[in-house]
Amino acid sequence: MDPDAVARAFVEHYYRTFDTNRAGLAGLYQDSSMLSFEGEKIQGAAAITAKLTGLQFQQCQHNISTIDCQTSGPAGGVIVFVSGSLQLAGEHHSLKFSQMFHLIPTPQGNFYVLNDIFRLNYA
Amino acid sequence: MDPDAVARAFVEHYYRTFDTNRAGLAGLYQDSSMLSFEGEKIQGAAAITAKLTGLQFQQCQHNISTIDCQTSGPAGGVIVFVSGSLQLAGEHHSLKFSQMFHLIPTPQGNFYVLNDIFRLNYA
Repeated sequence: MDPDAVARAFVEHYYRTFDTNRAGLAGLYQDSSMLSFEGEKIQGAAAITAKLTGLQFQQCQHNISTIDCQTSGPAGGVIVFVSGSLQLAGEHHSLKFSQMFHLIPTPQGNFYVLNDIFRLNYA
Repeated sequence: MDPDAVARAFVEHYYRTFDTNRAGLAGLYQDSSMLSFEGEKIQGAAAITAKLTGLQFQQCQHNISTIDCQTSGPAGGVIVFVSGSLQLAGEHHSLKFSQMFHLIPTPQGNFYVLNDIFRLNYA
């Protein structure tokens, strides 16, 4: 496994899905998954998907600035740390954010998101 | 284990040590530890400590804005996500940063840092 390739492919897939078909993110989470969204903790694929699809903005575009990744131990996990900006439809200014994901391999050879922490970077 | 208490205690200890006795951070890392510092990857307690003690600024003060934490799986790990600002001696402006740590329990009942990713938040 090349963790850098895993991280790049995941980031590309995650934000493209977020921006075009947010409900499709459900397949990336499992019941044990945790999302911390601006300090609010949400557990499980269903609740996480409900949170993300229920956000007030309907259309958005993520632009990625940096991707860092590291392996997270002998079990084959990958930690991905992203910085970027979020452009909301109809807004002039974009919002800077930082987000981390902890990806865990599945028996099927894919990865799911165990840990997901999102924070806007307040100026 | 209360992961929130672990995260708060770690963050308080880490940044106080960074700001007052940077070489003391060595005890928090092991040979398997990885630091990604502004995109540069460094492995192992000795190399990480050399990087941190060799940074150009000698005096600094971290101010913490947010701490998010989640458990990272059945092995008892804790993921800590920090945002804050870094004030360098003699500089008017502070630098906003985001940093994540993946803490792994030791047989002695402490935690060490397996993963550490640091990024300045560029405006």
